[in-house]
Amino acid sequence: MPTSTPTRDRILAHAERVASRDGLDRLTIGRLAAELGLSKSGLFAHVGSKDALQLEVLRRAAERFRDAVVRPAARTERGEPRVRAYFDGWLRWAADPAMPGGCLITPASFDLDDRPGPARDFLATAQRQWLDTLAHAARVAADAGHFRADLDAAQFAFDLNGIYLGCVFAERLLGDSDAEPRARRAFERLLGDSRR
Amino acid sequence: MPTSTPTRDRILAHAERVASRDGLDRLTIGRLAAELGLSKSGLFAHVGSKDALQLEVLRRAAERFRDAVVRPAARTERGEPRVRAYFDGWLRWAADPAMPGGCLITPASFDLDDRPGPARDFLATAQRQWLDTLAHAARVAADAGHFRADLDAAQFAFDLNGIYLGCVFAERLLGDSDAEPRARRAFERLLGDSRR
Repeated sequence: MPTSTPTRDRILAHAERVASRDGLDRLTIGRLAAELGLSKSGLFAHVGSKDALQLEVLRRAAERFRDAVVRPAARTERGEPRVRAYFDGWLRWAADPAMPGGCLITPASFDLDDRPGPARDFLATAQRQWLDTLAHAARVAADAGHFRADLDAAQFAFDLNGIYLGCVFAERLLGDSDAEPRARRAFERLLGDSRR
Repeated sequence: MPTSTPTRDRILAHAERVASRDGLDRLTIGRLAAELGLSKSGLFAHVGSKDALQLEVLRRAAERFRDAVVRPAARTERGEPRVRAYFDGWLRWAADPAMPGGCLITPASFDLDDRPGPARDFLATAQRQWLDTLAHAARVAADAGHFRADLDAAQFAFDLNGIYLGCVFAERLLGDSDAEPRARRAFERLLGDSRR
């Protein structure tokens, strides 16, 4: 990959918006070149092939996710407050204005699940790490006595992921204005069951 | 739409398998024609444009979902047994061999959420109907005294959808062999909270 340049950053920021709205699969060198007023060969020199471009867009989204959600929450008080911080940050992330069509990682996770390759591998690894982070936070909350001692932390992460996916689905496909309040209610039910 | 013919049925069955594996977006007239050994104009005569083809593939998947999941469950005992039958059928559906890449409706629901058009409209309507069916079953279970009287049935449907989505995600992207048992545990937790 070429190092960061203003042109490359501009290309990738635009690519991220396109992928957010239309899906990672519609991100082609030809389309980007036309929209940015660059030649295809010029664009290729900056970002490489379509596959390399898609992978780089995923990498940037994952890095922004770490900066916006994971790192700030990891600095909050351990235990239930940190679990809440992760969840709050995650919901805020879904409304990130840099992604006008919502988080591009979620549709890509369903779309690429049958297409072996670097993009799928990257997604699976990043999503596993995130679920592990959530499970670890739940385990720490159990150790701190906030949650019950025998809590299944991996199940907690599975359940939390389902709440997030259901929220994105209801908000974006169904246009349900009650999606976020419903997700928060589901989260409180999960916390209640995790304490008991 | 032309009426059903053996050739048209063969085209659509193949289209459904392609869409299941690679996504609805990769379903093009040119690709199908090549894979089925037909001319593009011949294929067009059978299924119309790419948009019409995508819509028809969604329609067929939704119809099979009704036959495989909704109708059999609607004939079971009302109340909690019917809620269970819907959920069991839904999980079986996710493993339907006619869709080697899993249910094509789920990725399309995330993929098309920002792309106005007949396919998106169809998906949103079909998904709303399904969530309404689940909410209605939960309401009936509350009326029958199986669930508590003040149950929020729409929240129940939201929660159930999240469990399903989390299961598909864990199974297909993460290759987590524990996905279905986790989904069943989440379902039992939801039922327990709905009774209390």
